[in-house]
Amino acid sequence: MSSPMDLYEQLTAQGLAVRHIKAQKGNKAEVESAVQLLLRMKEDYKLLTGQDYQAGRPPTHTEDDDSGPAEDDEDDQVNPWNVSTSSAKGVDYDKLIVRFGSCKIEQELVDRIARVTGKTPHHFLRRGIFFSHRDMHQILDAYESRKSFYLYTGRGPSSGAMHVGHLIPFLFTKWLQDVFDVPLVVQMTDDEKYLWKDLSLEDCHRYTLENARDIIACGFDPDKTFIFSDLDYMGASPSFYRNVVKVQKHVTFNQVKGIFGFTDSDCIGKISFPAIQAAPSFSNSFPQIFGDRNDVQCLIPCAIDQDPYFRMTRDVAPRIGYLKPALLHSTFFPALQGAQTKMSASDANSSIFLTDTAKQIKNKVNKHAFSGGKDTVEEHRKLGGNPDVDVSFMYLTFFLEDDEQLEKIRQERCASHRRTEEVFDRDASAHDRGASGETQASDRRDRATVHDPAQTTLQLLEPSEERTLTVFCSCVITLC
Amino acid sequence: MSSPMDLYEQLTAQGLAVRHIKAQKGNKAEVESAVQLLLRMKEDYKLLTGQDYQAGRPPTHTEDDDSGPAEDDEDDQVNPWNVSTSSAKGVDYDKLIVRFGSCKIEQELVDRIARVTGKTPHHFLRRGIFFSHRDMHQILDAYESRKSFYLYTGRGPSSGAMHVGHLIPFLFTKWLQDVFDVPLVVQMTDDEKYLWKDLSLEDCHRYTLENARDIIACGFDPDKTFIFSDLDYMGASPSFYRNVVKVQKHVTFNQVKGIFGFTDSDCIGKISFPAIQAAPSFSNSFPQIFGDRNDVQCLIPCAIDQDPYFRMTRDVAPRIGYLKPALLHSTFFPALQGAQTKMSASDANSSIFLTDTAKQIKNKVNKHAFSGGKDTVEEHRKLGGNPDVDVSFMYLTFFLEDDEQLEKIRQERCASHRRTEEVFDRDASAHDRGASGETQASDRRDRATVHDPAQTTLQLLEPSEERTLTVFCSCVITLC
Repeated sequence: MSSPMDLYEQLTAQGLAVRHIKAQKGNKAEVESAVQLLLRMKEDYKLLTGQDYQAGRPPTHTEDDDSGPAEDDEDDQVNPWNVSTSSAKGVDYDKLIVRFGSCKIEQELVDRIARVTGKTPHHFLRRGIFFSHRDMHQILDAYESRKSFYLYTGRGPSSGAMHVGHLIPFLFTKWLQDVFDVPLVVQMTDDEKYLWKDLSLEDCHRYTLENARDIIACGFDPDKTFIFSDLDYMGASPSFYRNVVKVQKHVTFNQVKGIFGFTDSDCIGKISFPAIQAAPSFSNSFPQIFGDRNDVQCLIPCAIDQDPYFRMTRDVAPRIGYLKPALLHSTFFPALQGAQTKMSASDANSSIFLTDTAKQIKNKVNKHAFSGGKDTVEEHRKLGGNPDVDVSFMYLTFFLEDDEQLEKIRQERCASHRRTEEVFDRDASAHDRGASGETQASDRRDRATVHDPAQTTLQLLEPSEERTLTVFCSCVITLC
Repeated sequence: MSSPMDLYEQLTAQGLAVRHIKAQKGNKAEVESAVQLLLRMKEDYKLLTGQDYQAGRPPTHTEDDDSGPAEDDEDDQVNPWNVSTSSAKGVDYDKLIVRFGSCKIEQELVDRIARVTGKTPHHFLRRGIFFSHRDMHQILDAYESRKSFYLYTGRGPSSGAMHVGHLIPFLFTKWLQDVFDVPLVVQMTDDEKYLWKDLSLEDCHRYTLENARDIIACGFDPDKTFIFSDLDYMGASPSFYRNVVKVQKHVTFNQVKGIFGFTDSDCIGKISFPAIQAAPSFSNSFPQIFGDRNDVQCLIPCAIDQDPYFRMTRDVAPRIGYLKPALLHSTFFPALQGAQTKMSASDANSSIFLTDTAKQIKNKVNKHAFSGGKDTVEEHRKLGGNPDVDVSFMYLTFFLEDDEQLEKIRQERCASHRRTEEVFDRDASAHDRGASGETQASDRRDRATVHDPAQTTLQLLEPSEERTLTVFCSCVITLC
């Protein structure tokens, strides 16, 4: 990966080369090509460091908007393919905001969303689970003056089963769609998964179809939601491909190297893929929804590890005549083993899948759930729990809406003599009934009011009922 | 650009790194990732040098099939974006065959084509204008055992006007389609031109439509020919995009760097584009023609500067379960100024466009056509012409079918006291009549039998009549 200093030195050398060619009165084409290279390198430098190149002034550390360096010199590793930290409390999100150059979601913004929509803000906002944004005030300004926007989120279908962590952006997006009443596009990056994983195209496409069921089950407005597979939609929409090519023309390998850490040994598909994740940020990628309008702004709710894609997108947008997408960033959903890593589908033991049976869940929790670092049941009973690192309690902050109840449980759990396993033990029989179809949908909805860490999680693990509600088209998945 | 020696040294270092990690008993993921990198580097090395990497044995110069190094250490520069030589006779094609690792089209192959098809070989074959091939015997073997194949050629639409040199692959492809009676696909790489040139998407797409008229005018079988714009077809065929992604997964940046000379400052669109030129080599990119068959072999007639794309394609094909395409390579069509460069649309003075008027042609020839290196009319009259470097005579070898006539003219011109300009002067009035519509199509066909350098060229410069014969669809251009 080029460091800012490497690039600074290359730029200085190229500047000298241009001067030399001019001094030698080199032919016009030669001078032009050297100058073009210099300009491109200056663009790369700006993107990597957030600073304009100045001869004689080496780069300094900075966190300008849209230009956070990708190199993780901290303990926390956060990029689309790796999230990890050494702290059991999870990633330090305040530091991440500074490093990525985004803005913290302050109480003032939460209040403004409440004011503008007339609704109580989603508990993901109230509790800082969506904690960072880019240009959200601009979206609200426009909304207040009756200019609409649209939502864009996505999923990389790397297996047939989604886990509970995958639902976070979708649950929040569903709420945003409800309160703002706006269109939503959902990109299934099956091409990305094919490029990154040892999977066949057919498998990736099948996972798209399977995952889409679970996404649809979140209850999006069928008249305003378009879910698409890249493998299908790239080959079904000339408008979409045109935007992909536009982005591809305006991003260099140096830039994706700096942003994503690609190397010369990476395949060319990976190298050009970021343009495909960028394209849905522009409304004219979807003429079936927006006609030829390219001025409908896009708001992207996503986990913060996806931000590098959209830093790049926001850098390119004005250069191809488009609006920058706005963003709302969520924290990561912790792995069963603790908040040092996010829940990941590629590690089955770290995850509770939407398709897991009650027995599987129980086994995973018993074996893997990190509940506070006490080594034995005796020790745990003696010392009490620590909700700051207790994965089970963290899950509750995601899924239990009632703030008072949550606080009560938190206090109880601090003093609790029960370990997480015991909580799950108690609830296993109830879940078993649900999974075997012995309870009815109404029962399950009732259960959602039982605010118990295990119960709330389990309720989310039951997509079978909602699946039957879905309309599902096997070719281009569309609800439009 | 990585040299074979650079890559050899990197490979040696990586081999040591793997051994070190294993010796230290590094964790499984670390070992695996180091080994994966080593394997990818070995693939790169094989592609670049044509040799398997062997520790302790640095690369030697070689010209294995499909593995010609792209670095031009000779005077001749030949790649998709630049063709030039210091020799007025043009590129040394025998050396090029050795460098690219292709096979010379020997008389034996020409005779076999005559035997198999029962037709006189096209004069492009008789005169070595198509001079090199890959796997043409395999195509003929299969054809003799009644296994069909299909033709694939293309055009990069960088301007609305095509020049006479652009017609070479199309005229030959038309002949191949006639004698073998096989399907043809023609790729218009408007996305490539957008990525490489300072042009808008709209312009590139418009040029596709304009150029397609001239291509259609060559008279391809409308029932067996499919002409497509990348900008349209990528967004209209999921099968095509799937093959693009398959190729993109199996080619690294190191490889395209070695083959095409891309640098870190190139845009990611250029870097991944070779996969788009590769995809039409596989029959299941066109389900509307071949259904889901992926075993119909492809034969690509093209100028030799396009070979790097298909070296790459042939390297990838077996790794994704497809047949390697076969190739027939043509020499370049010389610029008016002489055979040091090929005729190029981006230099208007080097080219005779299909849309040029008689007056424009006359001016260009008078001002620019290189006729043998004599400085004055007097000198030329005294010393005679030299057909080996006389551009006007070279054009005749392309367009005058009758071998005897050509030889007669060659001998005459060796002794000729007329310079090219005078020949063109004599014919200007006849062409003017044609251009203003005063002559009929039959007259023009008659004129084609007047074997005069200027005349034969001019007849090819009259596409207006044929244009009226074309069927033309503005969205996806298809004759299927």
